[in-house]
Amino acid sequence: MTHEAGIPLGIRFKLLSDTPQDSAAQVVSDVVVGDYRDLDTLRDFARGCDVITFDHEHVPTEHLRTLEADGIPVRPGPDALVHAQDKGVMRARLDAIGVPCPRHRIVSDPEDVAAFAAEGEGFPVVLKTVRGGYDGKGVWVVRSAAEAEDPFRAGVPVLAEEKVDFVRELAANVVRSPHGQAVAYPVVESRQVNGVCDTVIAPAPDLPAERALHAEQLALNIAKELDVIGHLAVELFETRDGRILVNELAMRPHNSGHWSQDGAITSQFANHVRAVLDLPLGDPRPRAKWTVMVNVLGGDYPDMYSAYLHCMARDPQLKIHMYGKDVKVGRKVGHVNTYGDDLADVLDRARHAAAYLRGTITE
Amino acid sequence: MTHEAGIPLGIRFKLLSDTPQDSAAQVVSDVVVGDYRDLDTLRDFARGCDVITFDHEHVPTEHLRTLEADGIPVRPGPDALVHAQDKGVMRARLDAIGVPCPRHRIVSDPEDVAAFAAEGEGFPVVLKTVRGGYDGKGVWVVRSAAEAEDPFRAGVPVLAEEKVDFVRELAANVVRSPHGQAVAYPVVESRQVNGVCDTVIAPAPDLPAERALHAEQLALNIAKELDVIGHLAVELFETRDGRILVNELAMRPHNSGHWSQDGAITSQFANHVRAVLDLPLGDPRPRAKWTVMVNVLGGDYPDMYSAYLHCMARDPQLKIHMYGKDVKVGRKVGHVNTYGDDLADVLDRARHAAAYLRGTITE
Repeated sequence: MTHEAGIPLGIRFKLLSDTPQDSAAQVVSDVVVGDYRDLDTLRDFARGCDVITFDHEHVPTEHLRTLEADGIPVRPGPDALVHAQDKGVMRARLDAIGVPCPRHRIVSDPEDVAAFAAEGEGFPVVLKTVRGGYDGKGVWVVRSAAEAEDPFRAGVPVLAEEKVDFVRELAANVVRSPHGQAVAYPVVESRQVNGVCDTVIAPAPDLPAERALHAEQLALNIAKELDVIGHLAVELFETRDGRILVNELAMRPHNSGHWSQDGAITSQFANHVRAVLDLPLGDPRPRAKWTVMVNVLGGDYPDMYSAYLHCMARDPQLKIHMYGKDVKVGRKVGHVNTYGDDLADVLDRARHAAAYLRGTITE
Repeated sequence: MTHEAGIPLGIRFKLLSDTPQDSAAQVVSDVVVGDYRDLDTLRDFARGCDVITFDHEHVPTEHLRTLEADGIPVRPGPDALVHAQDKGVMRARLDAIGVPCPRHRIVSDPEDVAAFAAEGEGFPVVLKTVRGGYDGKGVWVVRSAAEAEDPFRAGVPVLAEEKVDFVRELAANVVRSPHGQAVAYPVVESRQVNGVCDTVIAPAPDLPAERALHAEQLALNIAKELDVIGHLAVELFETRDGRILVNELAMRPHNSGHWSQDGAITSQFANHVRAVLDLPLGDPRPRAKWTVMVNVLGGDYPDMYSAYLHCMARDPQLKIHMYGKDVKVGRKVGHVNTYGDDLADVLDRARHAAAYLRGTITE
């Protein structure tokens, strides 16, 4: 999707891909297949690139520092990216700059989890490995010390967090350039199913303007303090008592910003490309009153394209974005966007299309 | 741009390209470099393709018939495409189905041109080689038989046409699928400079609704009668006395439809891809009151990207589409789209950006 956004600007990508079957490798012309954890592979790949950026956060921080020492601009840089790689580093830094977060601390064993619970509202407690988690992986919700064995088995530090009594999840997406320019997308509501993002509504319905502005400023402030270059997604909890707490950070175009491909004047992907090249940023404002994104998860159809006939004929305004991935049950294999003036209708169209593409419904 | 539109649908392209430097070859992952005039190259290339389509009309008609005989769907098919390849065939067919055209006939030599002029309103007369012309190439406006020598030198048949007293040029863009579904984009105004498209305004300003509907129906009727599959652009003259005459046909996404990338719910490229795959077509309606496209011609800047800083900073809503071509003076190397409610403002923004990218203005 970043390649797609780069084409009209004449921006040419060279891709380091795990396999030739990766989504991006299917559409980019200049692909190197290799392991992003191998420093020699990275250095060979980086030679001749004007700038390096990412579609995931897993490249080892120390390797990125080596690339920078080699003179290759890395955006976002390792000193920023580490906050999206390591939840312990992230929490410590957000505390230091006064950003409201769930109560948290690093815990050493199940007994320490019980102590953490006792320091606050008791169980349940959320445990997260500080590195390597995504889409609900590496996250446990435990109701007792006895349930808290698993997270410690991976041998990486474990972060304990209070289970926030939130009314919904929001996301504030911002983009920042080396020049210091930044833009904020409207704050969206993000609905999760089994820990995986299911639906995003832009803008978040019934969010008071003051609270939306507060969330945007929070994200812009984090981008500035952490010196983030490119897209920053700040996942947020809106609590029952009206507070906004930071849940997670992602430093790349993010699922909560996919709506912008069809719903904003400039998509998150276009603005990420512009930011990492230090070009002036595009207008992030919405083009429609409501835009809804629903993820398409792998389901019953091994060939999801057979569902196009129904979906396209039913809704000529539907925007389908498929990733060319092999279909596995529960895997994100695409998303759909819809937009319009009537939120109930826009939501219904997106949900219908995503469910039909997955095979959950057949009419 | 067609590849770009195929990415979100998971449509993968295999490209036959003249050189590795061609615009499309820079961004498509699966590229075969070869000569589209060579039958063996075409047959080798076509093996395994689900469908063949084009971004120009120059593949020899008889080669396309061979591919069809090999069992490869060619869309648009050779029997349709020949009308966009051969202006003589096109005029004869449009006459046969009652589509209004400028007065015309095939002429044999300069004396015959004089006879053609005498049969109607006299000189000037427009002469066109029936094959191989584009962007004003292969077209002559002559004021006497003595001026009419050049067109006959190429050794291909020459078509004479009256010089139409038009108030402006319009274009009707439609897309048709094998299933018989068709959609019509709003009729646009197309402004030429030195025979090359310069500006397109969507929809055409001050075009009476009846005349717009008539032009759309004309294009839909041509698509049906000629069995066009994919995008059909019908270039039109609007005469001083309110008639609509057909100037040219193009059977591929067309310069007069580039505005649709940012101005329509579904772009001409997305609908062309959907049509050639016989998928239901997307909504062609505009997303903005006015959309303007201005072509960027090669000019003073060998590296046009240096102008991005100014253009993007001046207009965060500007949509730049560059083709990655080497800059040569007068060559189409990109275009810009702008949209909004105020036509004068939208026009001004597009013209400024295109002129700045070209280097005609520097502030």
